[in-house]
Amino acid sequence: MIDQETTTKELDRRKFLTKAGIGVAGFAAGSAIIAACGSDDDAGPSTTAAPATTAAPTTTSVALASGGPELEWEMGTSWPTALVTLFGSAQMFGEEVGRLTDGRFKINVRPAGEIVGGLEVLPTVRDRGMEMGHTADYYWVGLSPVHQLSTAVPFGLTQRQHNAWLYMGGGLEALRRFYAEEHNLIFFPCGGTGVQMGGWFTKEINTVDDIRGLKMRIPGISGKVFAALGGEQISIAGGEILPAIETGAIDAAEFVGPTDDLILGLDQFAGTLYYYHPGWWEPGTSVNVLLSLDLWNELPPQYQAAIDNAATATNLKTTAMYDNLNQRDLQKVKEFAQIREFSPELMKAFKAETEIVLNDVAAGDAAFAEIYEPWKVFRDGIAEWHGLAERSYLMQQTA
Amino acid sequence: MIDQETTTKELDRRKFLTKAGIGVAGFAAGSAIIAACGSDDDAGPSTTAAPATTAAPTTTSVALASGGPELEWEMGTSWPTALVTLFGSAQMFGEEVGRLTDGRFKINVRPAGEIVGGLEVLPTVRDRGMEMGHTADYYWVGLSPVHQLSTAVPFGLTQRQHNAWLYMGGGLEALRRFYAEEHNLIFFPCGGTGVQMGGWFTKEINTVDDIRGLKMRIPGISGKVFAALGGEQISIAGGEILPAIETGAIDAAEFVGPTDDLILGLDQFAGTLYYYHPGWWEPGTSVNVLLSLDLWNELPPQYQAAIDNAATATNLKTTAMYDNLNQRDLQKVKEFAQIREFSPELMKAFKAETEIVLNDVAAGDAAFAEIYEPWKVFRDGIAEWHGLAERSYLMQQTA
Repeated sequence: MIDQETTTKELDRRKFLTKAGIGVAGFAAGSAIIAACGSDDDAGPSTTAAPATTAAPTTTSVALASGGPELEWEMGTSWPTALVTLFGSAQMFGEEVGRLTDGRFKINVRPAGEIVGGLEVLPTVRDRGMEMGHTADYYWVGLSPVHQLSTAVPFGLTQRQHNAWLYMGGGLEALRRFYAEEHNLIFFPCGGTGVQMGGWFTKEINTVDDIRGLKMRIPGISGKVFAALGGEQISIAGGEILPAIETGAIDAAEFVGPTDDLILGLDQFAGTLYYYHPGWWEPGTSVNVLLSLDLWNELPPQYQAAIDNAATATNLKTTAMYDNLNQRDLQKVKEFAQIREFSPELMKAFKAETEIVLNDVAAGDAAFAEIYEPWKVFRDGIAEWHGLAERSYLMQQTA
Repeated sequence: MIDQETTTKELDRRKFLTKAGIGVAGFAAGSAIIAACGSDDDAGPSTTAAPATTAAPTTTSVALASGGPELEWEMGTSWPTALVTLFGSAQMFGEEVGRLTDGRFKINVRPAGEIVGGLEVLPTVRDRGMEMGHTADYYWVGLSPVHQLSTAVPFGLTQRQHNAWLYMGGGLEALRRFYAEEHNLIFFPCGGTGVQMGGWFTKEINTVDDIRGLKMRIPGISGKVFAALGGEQISIAGGEILPAIETGAIDAAEFVGPTDDLILGLDQFAGTLYYYHPGWWEPGTSVNVLLSLDLWNELPPQYQAAIDNAATATNLKTTAMYDNLNQRDLQKVKEFAQIREFSPELMKAFKAETEIVLNDVAAGDAAFAEIYEPWKVFRDGIAEWHGLAERSYLMQQTA
């Protein structure tokens, strides 16, 4: 356990750094569900912790009170406060851990940039510059494609399917083995968006021909799929989407869904906008709570149970929050955009290209392949099951 | 808090009652997700607690240990151990509460019939004959149709939609107000089946004409809908389904989904079976943990948080368990049954009749109407939202 003095010093130093604006990374171009308020030119997530925060591990063990030690931990997130869904998820988690420990285990939830940047969360937590993180791990797909499997996979699992795989299908065990070996980290799923929307288009697209030359803000693997079909993958921050659409620098951009997308300000665009679905590249994007295995192992079992249960409960309630807000905000979106569904021809092409790209990734990365192969079996099995009553019921709801 | 002596006496008496086989109610005909092993002739759920268990309230406060009092509570369930999904859900909840309190708050999870019958859970908990229950509240729809809203409503919300309504759409508040006023109970959602299957048929049905004269084991509101369309509603226990199909006493029977249905032994039937979907009468059946408000209010806030978070986490993991097992057991079902989807004509007729029946219920019950009216608005809003990406994505998974 870390003594009080070190921690106090560390916190003071952080306070200074925050005020001075040092170490505040923005939200970047390379990710899908990050916020619109990114302002720097940072091209992508960092893979090493911000130097300012790596100096000392920071477990705060104030006193061994009745019922457990008093701890005060910092949790960095990848979310600005404006992203009420994901920052809200992190806050909910922190509050529940507090309730579960009678306030003895306090987690200070920090918006992106307050202590470390949104794209510095994983390396900072790994390098013990901060106790906890709340992030979308695929920001670190550059470190390993396995982070795609713990967050979202194109044409992969829906939120419920992902949870079934994680908690009951061996997914959590397989992924945690990788996180332990690779980063000495443990993670807890803590929320999911549901199937995202397919993004904003200034023109209708119906055939593969319509993709040719289309300039789209779309990251990662799905960007590669678009490029393979003749489109042009553009990387810009969320906050730049509106001006880029206005100047014609891009023809299309994907983000998340109605609620998160409203902060992009696209209702200000004078032209016609088409809002496509489904966002096949993110059918169930999960955010995770991260902490180092060393810290985890030092925690009393009761505090471990608190983290575990608070995260799982928040996982469910975050998706509930998304569903509740998205249905409301869909009405606002309909006031300035037209809803469209990707045609069967397009979906077929997207799916075929995605399979090629994913198999390529598996061929080049043994750790990915080891989890991906049984994951595919699970995906096909649960897709068959959900293809019965879940699908036919949803279809009648809109019949 | 109740003293040690009373509780010990009460527990001894229970042990005796269990051994003597007194107060063990079976699983009944009148409900959909209950077990197949019901063996008595009990026609339906009881609305008053079993006399044997109403004598004394039973909070066990052994000692005020460091970090909270030591409690040992009994939790009656409506599930036999053979129902691994729902009894598993109750066990998971009890274990998590134990972990969250360092073993100080112990919950003894009892299968149906061990202390009280599966259909005596709600009144027994209400009348303080037992501290906690884990049940499907719609077994007590005879007490109030509101229990349908806290469990499952025909053509209602899917599991995810139900959770969105409960946790974020005002559902939990509205229902808890009713539970408090009506029963002095509080409840915590603790699991859900997902959209159920539409049941087993010995002949194909395609049109409303095919319903005429069809003898089906189908309970409650959906039974009324079948009857309104010319079918015959039969009430038998799950364990009687196979012999009734074999003798031709019924032409069809609904239960839950692949995993739970396998315990019915329908693979032993020599004739052809058609397994229809979706089970529009149970699109997201929820099970709940129940306890009296008086006991709840006496609990330390930390124990309240433990119940709350353990239940919500178990809620998610129960559906994950259903999804993981159902996809596996679907393969077993396919070996002896043919999968069919209700035709658009049938679904339209079912839906129209259901709307009439539900509006009738609302017209006759003010408490139901008060929750049902805003629930309908929520249902239509979230059905529109899930009708976009969630629906189109699921459709591509089986395209």
